[in-house]
Amino acid sequence: MILLESALDYIKTHESQFIADVSDCLKIPSISTDPNYKPDILRCAEHVIAACKKAGLSKVEYLPAPGYPMIYAEWLEAPGKPTILIYAHYDVQPADPAELWTTPAFTPTERDGYLYARGMSDNKGQLFCFLKSIESYLKTSGKLPVNIKLLIEGEEETGSPHFHTVLASQKERLKADVGLIADTPMFGPQTPSICVSLKGLTFVEVEVTSANSDLHSGQHGGPVPNAILTLCDMVSKLKTADNQVAIPGFYDDVLPIPDTFRHTIQNLPFSEADYCQQMGFKGVKPETGYSVLEHQWVRPTIEANGIIGGYTGAGSKTIVPCSAKVKLSMRLVPNQTPEKATALFKAYLAQITPPNVKVTVKERSGYRPARMNTDTPAMKAAKQALLESYGLPASFTGDGGSIPAAYELQHVLGIDAVLLGFYLRSDNIHAPNERMSLKHFQQGIESCARFFYHYGA
Amino acid sequence: MILLESALDYIKTHESQFIADVSDCLKIPSISTDPNYKPDILRCAEHVIAACKKAGLSKVEYLPAPGYPMIYAEWLEAPGKPTILIYAHYDVQPADPAELWTTPAFTPTERDGYLYARGMSDNKGQLFCFLKSIESYLKTSGKLPVNIKLLIEGEEETGSPHFHTVLASQKERLKADVGLIADTPMFGPQTPSICVSLKGLTFVEVEVTSANSDLHSGQHGGPVPNAILTLCDMVSKLKTADNQVAIPGFYDDVLPIPDTFRHTIQNLPFSEADYCQQMGFKGVKPETGYSVLEHQWVRPTIEANGIIGGYTGAGSKTIVPCSAKVKLSMRLVPNQTPEKATALFKAYLAQITPPNVKVTVKERSGYRPARMNTDTPAMKAAKQALLESYGLPASFTGDGGSIPAAYELQHVLGIDAVLLGFYLRSDNIHAPNERMSLKHFQQGIESCARFFYHYGA
Repeated sequence: MILLESALDYIKTHESQFIADVSDCLKIPSISTDPNYKPDILRCAEHVIAACKKAGLSKVEYLPAPGYPMIYAEWLEAPGKPTILIYAHYDVQPADPAELWTTPAFTPTERDGYLYARGMSDNKGQLFCFLKSIESYLKTSGKLPVNIKLLIEGEEETGSPHFHTVLASQKERLKADVGLIADTPMFGPQTPSICVSLKGLTFVEVEVTSANSDLHSGQHGGPVPNAILTLCDMVSKLKTADNQVAIPGFYDDVLPIPDTFRHTIQNLPFSEADYCQQMGFKGVKPETGYSVLEHQWVRPTIEANGIIGGYTGAGSKTIVPCSAKVKLSMRLVPNQTPEKATALFKAYLAQITPPNVKVTVKERSGYRPARMNTDTPAMKAAKQALLESYGLPASFTGDGGSIPAAYELQHVLGIDAVLLGFYLRSDNIHAPNERMSLKHFQQGIESCARFFYHYGA
Repeated sequence: MILLESALDYIKTHESQFIADVSDCLKIPSISTDPNYKPDILRCAEHVIAACKKAGLSKVEYLPAPGYPMIYAEWLEAPGKPTILIYAHYDVQPADPAELWTTPAFTPTERDGYLYARGMSDNKGQLFCFLKSIESYLKTSGKLPVNIKLLIEGEEETGSPHFHTVLASQKERLKADVGLIADTPMFGPQTPSICVSLKGLTFVEVEVTSANSDLHSGQHGGPVPNAILTLCDMVSKLKTADNQVAIPGFYDDVLPIPDTFRHTIQNLPFSEADYCQQMGFKGVKPETGYSVLEHQWVRPTIEANGIIGGYTGAGSKTIVPCSAKVKLSMRLVPNQTPEKATALFKAYLAQITPPNVKVTVKERSGYRPARMNTDTPAMKAAKQALLESYGLPASFTGDGGSIPAAYELQHVLGIDAVLLGFYLRSDNIHAPNERMSLKHFQQGIESCARFFYHYGA
């Protein structure tokens, strides 16, 4: 316990220093989705290298990788103890619309117990939870209760395009007993969470073309195909009355929800009425036979993300439009794959395409779903760490989002990841006024320190 | 016959002068839909006044009217003869996209027997058919075989917003036996046409709102309402499998197609295969029980003109969009009204709106349909005039478009209009490279001169 006590003491007494350190990193607009920010990405990578060294990690380097720099660091001086592979990312989402930020996105600002800045929750703040918990050991006892490897990428917000390749080429070096990621939210301030289920994702864009050009709706309207009406007809056939995806075969590979997990979800403090009021819904309607959270976390979905066709300016233009398109995305659960989901989608689309229009489909490669084994020493250690840090029992949760890294760790390295979450859903990730409560930041650091301790015990 | 023979002789010998005169008018970019062109509109109105005077009309003046100038002219020196009220418009559509014009839109250019310029078919060229036929009498015999009143507006392309008011306030002055309009196309080069049926029109814009903001499709997707999916569902319910408008009560006021007109339509030289090939359709599907032309001309329709919602930029954005909207227009036939059609639409929309979204409808005032009596002295005179000018029998046709003036003449003045058409559907009105064949221009002038003669006989 001496190791942990000193670390916890260090964490308590260095709060303002930790805030200053993460703030320095948050000042760098390391936006990966816009190539104009490449110099900032490179500067941020250098900054992360320095932060790793400041934490006391001796071996810190760039991994050979295409794309933006991927940083590797390690501390492997605990023979006989398990090895944790920590994953995080230093790139962030764009800040626009800038005018909706109360204080500038890249000027970290304390206000009402929160630190506001782009990246504070996603993912620099959580990266610093890892680094500062490591520092709390190395700067007190000079050693950690476990072996640690860190892998920090700069392309998460662009879909981790090179992550698989790097992982596959560095398999031996990255070998570990478990992964550790903090890129999902806490379920609520009273519910410390470990996310054990992530969805996969696949994108398609469907365009309907009905004529050579837009036509006068008076001279031609009626018997001729209208691209918008046709597209709407087709889109209306994508879901069933039970709010299932209507694509034949879509559910064939879907694994049932484990009973224990279903039970856990049912016991989470979730109010449909509060949810609707908070988000401005007049009502929600989950898939028949499932709750809202079950549908969102562990059942596959299809959503339209955007649609456009014909005249969309002010006033009116009396045309029969010749083309219209819709962007769709499908969220997948184990054991669905993006490849099969897209193929089934295309087969169904062909079935529901009327004979008098042309339909083209653009597809984009997607991500696979991931589900974690909850009955492992790492999960037990994580639960114990959260219980002690928050004084509240932790719950397993799911998330409808995708973290390519979580799937790749399973697929390439054969290890599950423990997915801790220190920010709240209300902390505006990907949105203006992103933030994290300073209390949660400290609790995050403490949770990591306790997790290392219990997992190494 | 002396009166007509001299007029026809004048028309033959003045072709190049007529082309020069209409070209001067075509050089003025009298675009009414863009307020920046107001000086050009005013200049064009002055030009039309001068052109009326040049035709030999002595009484030419501006009518008291709000909005852009409305020009009135008359020649009433044929006592005991009927009076024709000619309607035309001097305003034009915008020319963009300018880069698609072979020669500039407002630089009238002769090429391959055509005169190319914005407004040559719609409607300056046809206005000059009227003026030059009047001139051909007044500059030869010094008199016309009928009394003539002209009403020339500058707001047709913006929906004739002040036409009704002016007509109503000038009822006595505008009194006539028949109207004469040339703002519809000839059915084909071998089919001189008199349009006897026009549709009404009404616009609605429907917006679905499903939440306070766009949401992460992973964290929320599935049970929550998606504005695009909901809108598509609703739009898919606007038409029946028989390609009828699905709105209950929509057909209650629809007058049946007169048998004689139906017979006429069936005898027009129309090839569905050629039509599809020309327009790039893979097929057409008229309302069950009706032909393509019947559906287009004399059966009501609903079309989506534009749709937009969610993310429509490059790539993907995994959101559940909170709003989506569609622009719709309905074409109406006698005795439907825009007011009732819109009210029925709104009632139906309320029926098909699911409980978990908010729907708003914006409506715009529309136009009424018009159908002409074909069994009148004016129609007989027109048929005879076209037969002599083209050497081909004329046919009654319909048009799915709307000419507010035609309805207003019926409604306010109690007179039908004879709708002649001298341009072809392929002459690109409202599009780049608008044109009229010079032969058709001359035949148009001749047709008007012959119509005056036969109607006055």
